[in-house]
Amino acid sequence: MTTLTNSILEAVREGAGFPEAFTPLHEPEFAGREEDYVADCIRTGWVSSVGSFVDRFEADLAEFTGCSRAVATVNGTAALHIALKCSGVQAGDEVLLPTLTFVATANATSYAGAIPHFVDSEATTLAVCPEALRSHLEECAEKRDGGCFNRKTGRRIAALVVMHAFGHPAQLDPLLELCREWSIPLVEDAAESLGSYYQGRHTGGFGLVSALSFNGNKILTTGGGGAILTNDPAIADRAKHLTTTARISDGWNFTHDEIGYNYRLPNLNAALGCAQLERITDMLQRKRALAMRYKALFKDIAGVRLLEEPQGTESNYWLCTLVLEQFDHQLHTEVLSALNDAGLMARPVWTLMHRLPMFADAPRADLSCAERLAVQIINIPSSPKLFAAPAGAGGDV
Amino acid sequence: MTTLTNSILEAVREGAGFPEAFTPLHEPEFAGREEDYVADCIRTGWVSSVGSFVDRFEADLAEFTGCSRAVATVNGTAALHIALKCSGVQAGDEVLLPTLTFVATANATSYAGAIPHFVDSEATTLAVCPEALRSHLEECAEKRDGGCFNRKTGRRIAALVVMHAFGHPAQLDPLLELCREWSIPLVEDAAESLGSYYQGRHTGGFGLVSALSFNGNKILTTGGGGAILTNDPAIADRAKHLTTTARISDGWNFTHDEIGYNYRLPNLNAALGCAQLERITDMLQRKRALAMRYKALFKDIAGVRLLEEPQGTESNYWLCTLVLEQFDHQLHTEVLSALNDAGLMARPVWTLMHRLPMFADAPRADLSCAERLAVQIINIPSSPKLFAAPAGAGGDV
Ligand SMILES: Cc1ncc(COP(=O)(O)O)c(C=O)c1O
Ligand SMILES: Cc1ncc(COP(=O)(O)O)c(C=O)c1O
Repeated sequence: MTTLTNSILEAVREGAGFPEAFTPLHEPEFAGREEDYVADCIRTGWVSSVGSFVDRFEADLAEFTGCSRAVATVNGTAALHIALKCSGVQAGDEVLLPTLTFVATANATSYAGAIPHFVDSEATTLAVCPEALRSHLEECAEKRDGGCFNRKTGRRIAALVVMHAFGHPAQLDPLLELCREWSIPLVEDAAESLGSYYQGRHTGGFGLVSALSFNGNKILTTGGGGAILTNDPAIADRAKHLTTTARISDGWNFTHDEIGYNYRLPNLNAALGCAQLERITDMLQRKRALAMRYKALFKDIAGVRLLEEPQGTESNYWLCTLVLEQFDHQLHTEVLSALNDAGLMARPVWTLMHRLPMFADAPRADLSCAERLAVQIINIPSSPKLFAAPAGAGGDV
Repeated sequence: MTTLTNSILEAVREGAGFPEAFTPLHEPEFAGREEDYVADCIRTGWVSSVGSFVDRFEADLAEFTGCSRAVATVNGTAALHIALKCSGVQAGDEVLLPTLTFVATANATSYAGAIPHFVDSEATTLAVCPEALRSHLEECAEKRDGGCFNRKTGRRIAALVVMHAFGHPAQLDPLLELCREWSIPLVEDAAESLGSYYQGRHTGGFGLVSALSFNGNKILTTGGGGAILTNDPAIADRAKHLTTTARISDGWNFTHDEIGYNYRLPNLNAALGCAQLERITDMLQRKRALAMRYKALFKDIAGVRLLEEPQGTESNYWLCTLVLEQFDHQLHTEVLSALNDAGLMARPVWTLMHRLPMFADAPRADLSCAERLAVQIINIPSSPKLFAAPAGAGGDV
């Protein structure tokens, strides 16, 4: 084992609080009214697609994120699919999205009948790089008929999806500026960034429409779940319609006016979400304190850094992320092995999208930064419970 | 109000046990270990896409239905989508399905990129009519290259979906025979027929693959949920793969070898399902007793009948169904109004699929029986709790 690997192992072990048992990347925490609310659903019989917890969860999410509307969905993938449809993506279009993302971002594009067009990320935010995207668009795109088109494929470029990786906000201002110049709607994949702010405003409220995930590994979980966020009431109404089988009721007659989806979040899962949201501030504080503890421990280890929230942002530090200085596949593997062997769960970034067989032929920009990041990034244990001190006490550890 | 309407109103009121409050069509019943199991998920932290209740629910479903494998899904619509894909349906194919069904059957066909081809139902089972289908295929289909093709559109006819309406099993033997003759795989939409048997075998086990739903209005609910049933282990494995993002893991590296879906049932919802399944026999008995009580009450009312389980089948009587003798739109509306106005929830059948705008151009057979049934059918309150006597006591009421 190299000295660097050994130093990393010791720092993660200390940062995680010298755990004795296997330590997962991110465990949910149910320390509030989760059981009460879920039992309430069962006692009243309201467990399914209609119920007061769904309405409340949507209202609470809108309030927490500062977006005017939230539409709860069965998961984040479903939220992304509908967000793309609501942003105007149609079959045969292209959608710009980072190669460095979870497969759901690209899959959702396919569900909408569109083709992913992969773009590069930057090392500071791990999100879409505005400068690289600008050059790429100048090289391959043209504006006509009020839209943006790929000159090579002839297809319309219908949206840009920006993903806030591991909770760190992307550079939204320059990305929005670029989208305005090129007439491309911006969609935020905010699956990982609940509780993350850009210039003081919650992520997910910058794009035309965006998606959250409440999967079990996320900061807030509903078992499985997600939400669509938007500030446009017409888009919110359309998202609600599409996620509820596009049903129109007229007395006891139901019809459906287009192909819709059963993407409703059950009330049972929304109940869990309501209880979780009551405690999110406390969970976010402890996650931040944990990140600060890791940061202090990694400050003096040469060859590796803890990824910090970008300037002008507040990150939820969903998954604490180490970035190795060298592009060294062997070192990367060695560190991953050492951590996992020690029971400290560690993961590389997802296999880049352009390397997956079903997207091998998709159009793409130069992706060299993402390719380098793929051998540099390591996620380490990040559960709020690893920083167990009472809320507020941990900021200066 | 006509005398017939009045007699129907009084019989439904009596059958439902002279309820004092508003009486829904079908309410879930949580009288077992639902709260315990769900609390267990929260206490152990296993609420999400992996967990022991998911495994147990799949095993319990396989055992209950007698199918070799069950794959739990996020809902019945998702199960149908994947069942169609697993039966070999591809983009551009046609799928035969009844116009008399819930919109999910047709939507799932569209999600797979295929075109619904609507066929007629019969008055005895309300399901696909084997004779009408035989004539229709003779008229429009031809066999070539080992498959069945629509001579008019040139498209492959890739599957037949049979839906067991309101729990009454379709005539599976003649339908299977027809499918064999024409080399068309049979898929069962068994969303409504958990606990229904054809010739002693559970529905859902006859087709190549089939779909169940555990929506809040179904006999067994998981909040939202569904399952894929099959006796083919390769299909089950593929269904599991497609519903879990088509992920392949190799140590800490994850890749995805095709476009997959996040159609996993959360452990929290599976926990509810396990508790519900423990009590299904009791719920089925009381539903049957309720149906027998309605049957006795309707026996002597001329002009209307209670739809009975077809010969050779055992129905779960999911939704008790009245069939008016006349094709009289006005009478149909009058009965629906009278029941709903009296707080006894009643519903016509779904708007027929070929009448929905998005399927207006889809190919179709003669649909005159379904069109007549649409003004004859009325569903009436059918919750097991309406027959509150202890299990077993009600069969001879
Ligand atoms: C970036 C990103 N997008 C989308 C999703 C999909 O969310 P879900 O798993 O809830 O479908 C996730 C989380 O899994 C994610 O991390
Ligand atoms: C015939 C039929 N097919 C499919 C479905 C879809 O199931 P789900 O609502 O669980 O998506 C249902 C129930 O809603 C149904 O009745």
